[in-house]
Amino acid sequence: MHDDLEDKLPLGPRPLIAVVGVGALGGYYAAKLIQRDQANVHLLLRSDYDAVRANGLQISSYQGDFFLPPERLHVHRDSREMPKADLVLVTLKATGNEAFDNLISPLLTETTAILTLQNGFGNEDRLAELFGAQRVIGGMAFVCINRLSPGVIHHIDHGFLRIGEYASAGAPARGDSPRVRQIAELFRAAGVQCDVLQDLRRGRWEKLLWNIPFNGFGAVLDRTTDQLLNSESGLELVRRIMREVIAAAAADGAILPDALVEQQIERTRTMGAYQSSMQVDRRQGRALEIEAILGEPLRRAQRLGVSTPTLATLYLMARLIDPAAASQ
Amino acid sequence: MHDDLEDKLPLGPRPLIAVVGVGALGGYYAAKLIQRDQANVHLLLRSDYDAVRANGLQISSYQGDFFLPPERLHVHRDSREMPKADLVLVTLKATGNEAFDNLISPLLTETTAILTLQNGFGNEDRLAELFGAQRVIGGMAFVCINRLSPGVIHHIDHGFLRIGEYASAGAPARGDSPRVRQIAELFRAAGVQCDVLQDLRRGRWEKLLWNIPFNGFGAVLDRTTDQLLNSESGLELVRRIMREVIAAAAADGAILPDALVEQQIERTRTMGAYQSSMQVDRRQGRALEIEAILGEPLRRAQRLGVSTPTLATLYLMARLIDPAAASQ
Repeated sequence: MHDDLEDKLPLGPRPLIAVVGVGALGGYYAAKLIQRDQANVHLLLRSDYDAVRANGLQISSYQGDFFLPPERLHVHRDSREMPKADLVLVTLKATGNEAFDNLISPLLTETTAILTLQNGFGNEDRLAELFGAQRVIGGMAFVCINRLSPGVIHHIDHGFLRIGEYASAGAPARGDSPRVRQIAELFRAAGVQCDVLQDLRRGRWEKLLWNIPFNGFGAVLDRTTDQLLNSESGLELVRRIMREVIAAAAADGAILPDALVEQQIERTRTMGAYQSSMQVDRRQGRALEIEAILGEPLRRAQRLGVSTPTLATLYLMARLIDPAAASQ
Repeated sequence: MHDDLEDKLPLGPRPLIAVVGVGALGGYYAAKLIQRDQANVHLLLRSDYDAVRANGLQISSYQGDFFLPPERLHVHRDSREMPKADLVLVTLKATGNEAFDNLISPLLTETTAILTLQNGFGNEDRLAELFGAQRVIGGMAFVCINRLSPGVIHHIDHGFLRIGEYASAGAPARGDSPRVRQIAELFRAAGVQCDVLQDLRRGRWEKLLWNIPFNGFGAVLDRTTDQLLNSESGLELVRRIMREVIAAAAADGAILPDALVEQQIERTRTMGAYQSSMQVDRRQGRALEIEAILGEPLRRAQRLGVSTPTLATLYLMARLIDPAAASQ
């Protein structure tokens, strides 16, 4: 397999998709694919294995509830017992990336593609390092979603995906490819809006423009999005860090218009008292996705010589309050 | 009264001292002066008036407990009913400075001096603006102290004072004067170590070098001093902001040696799990001394053209979590 987009061929009809990580995100998108029978989907679970095997997947969605009984699911608790996949869909929390090798290696053939829908920077790089850049596709999920209990998922709002081929640092962005178009088609046929990104890196920076302030300050200060925006100080913090992100993105070749700052703020106002995933993780005492959302973008800015002092401060403060690492 | 140090004469024997604000700080130092009968001390109280009038002042101190019964105290709840003072000792929380005019004006003669022991920057400036720079003396209390209930004070550790004449911005520092030497003598005779500062501004910056990180991060992250120092991230935050404070102080004419950073950190390690006053205020839902400890130093750095981005971020975050101003 060469690093040539035309070689990034479609996966064949009704591909075998291995979903690695069946929390809110993985559970929801897997359920959509299974519901419309768009692929031969196999699920890899850990702590929720017994519950999902016994009770199936229950999705309460603003677009309509649905239920997948156990007999419609292929559930596994060890990837060594799973069939080889055409596509591995990575929906682990980014704090679990040290398990990539163990979890993913057994699923791969020569041509298996890997699509990560995880947050932030660093996930594709790590997958490329371990398994080869030519396999890797990145994606972003724009969705408000919660796992209420094992296999029980609350889909609150939105739901669309943006996916594109990975380009390693310095390589020109060209996110489109036959296989990416096929995967996007597959999601669309399953009722999920899915756009193909010509420039994955730009897409990631654009999503980080929201994630960095609202996940970061939300978690460190334990404040909902509306609490951050309803104070002059919060608004100033959000604007400052967004301007730093735009400067870092520009140095990384991703030009985000300045007007996005106020657009994102206005869009966020419509979300009400929203708890970002990192604020939820903090409240529930779970590991925060600090490196993917704050650390990697900060290090990228530093490598590019862009000063991001607000982000640097926020990153250190987040590490300090991370429930998973009380003394980092 | 001219702005000439030789005119800053002693106050006369056994001066009348009006103590404005009898919380932990004011209660403790007033009690020491009264105990050794070093001055004719009058106390101005608000919420604690009834309790102190009925029960006196009880000091539990690591240097020995003592009790002042009501008959040894002159307590007042309105400064208009108090005698004129030779010296006004200001021990209000810096968040209460808007009351200066009402509380202090009735106590003043032509020659009354005013000594503030409040935290941070801006208190002397405000007193000078209202009552004339020639009256103003600044001081710092190095003391671990808590008010357990009205009139009941726990003196945990330390206790020494540093006082010096105020010099307005741009004026040369010359903290020594006959009256400052007399006041220092008075405290020493009451068993309180009290040094005369030749350079009050430098003294304030030096104290802020501790207060800014440990009050600021302590309150915003709700972390004790040892929690801040026992993590790599916390240590890095403390060092960064201390370096910013040293740069701002230098531009303000106060040269603090770089070695102070590690010295202060080592000294703070000996304090164990200490809750800074601002962390305590946050936990108790009281107004934080944000402007005196963070805002004024930040604005001074900005006026001097010194970049202090960590302080700027911390200041905005502190304003956001201030219990007294949920939507500033």
